[in-house]
Amino acid sequence: MKILALSGSLRAASINTMLLRVMAQVAPRDIQVSVYDGLGKLPLFNADLESRYPAPVLEFHRAVAAADALVFASPEYAHGVTGTIKNALDWLVGFEPFAAKFVAVLNTSPRAHHADDALRETLKTMAAVVVEPASISIPLLGAGLDESAMAATPAIAAAVLECLRCLQHAVVSTSGSVTAEFPLG
Amino acid sequence: MKILALSGSLRAASINTMLLRVMAQVAPRDIQVSVYDGLGKLPLFNADLESRYPAPVLEFHRAVAAADALVFASPEYAHGVTGTIKNALDWLVGFEPFAAKFVAVLNTSPRAHHADDALRETLKTMAAVVVEPASISIPLLGAGLDESAMAATPAIAAAVLECLRCLQHAVVSTSGSVTAEFPLG
Repeated sequence: MKILALSGSLRAASINTMLLRVMAQVAPRDIQVSVYDGLGKLPLFNADLESRYPAPVLEFHRAVAAADALVFASPEYAHGVTGTIKNALDWLVGFEPFAAKFVAVLNTSPRAHHADDALRETLKTMAAVVVEPASISIPLLGAGLDESAMAATPAIAAAVLECLRCLQHAVVSTSGSVTAEFPLG
Repeated sequence: MKILALSGSLRAASINTMLLRVMAQVAPRDIQVSVYDGLGKLPLFNADLESRYPAPVLEFHRAVAAADALVFASPEYAHGVTGTIKNALDWLVGFEPFAAKFVAVLNTSPRAHHADDALRETLKTMAAVVVEPASISIPLLGAGLDESAMAATPAIAAAVLECLRCLQHAVVSTSGSVTAEFPLG
């Protein structure tokens, strides 16, 4: 199973990006998690370009189409989604392979709810299937953990693994095309 | 008085951009409305760049600082703000001259409320003063009007003029530094 992980922050030390990297580290052998590094290269969405997509958009579309499920982790900026994550989604509106895709929305700052609510509303509007048991809150903001410390924290490793298991369960129960190789919770 | 007008759509035939251009056309002599054309040139926000802002960000900051008030007109994409307008705002978070700025939020598609609500929430969080009487709904989506037709429609011209009057009233009553040269409603 292939998971595409999207971080809404371009900051090098982003806790959201780090959490997704930890997810890639701890993923079981039958789940491949790729943290997408091209969101910062996407141009700002312009419907006039839809007749001839710029190369970074085509690359993004290919990555989305190839994934069985997507995981989002994005900070909240000024009580809103980040421009970066919304811009990425704007390029997926009307992109047929995105519809009905299973998605999980991680929230690293559970006290912040505006961006989380808005991201879920947009994803549902775009006909993605938000897998609720996979959409976990992991309070990391202010915890001061780097990537190694996150991976070494059993509760965090267990939470991202649980997210992956729930996504896999959703994908397997629907398509039947992916073989689960570990017990599903 | 100087008004900076920001459209959340980069599409050439955007009704939001057209409405702002009409506003610039019908503005009284003592109000200068500039429709900013640089939002599409802004890089995606990255906090790591805040120590050395890219040139398009500096230009945007200068334009914002020079304005007495801002007018936003932005479409709704998938029940959310556009990535373009949120990205522009992300670059203004913590930009001191933006705080306490008077702003109006125009809504050209009154049946859509998610993006309008989210934009207002973000603006208020950023300490902008949303001038409610200036924040007018003008149902243009699907009306099929081009810029000339909008300008020639008395109700539209009156609505954008009213928006400007209300903004001017807010600026004048607060600062006292701008001389109103036409009767305020």
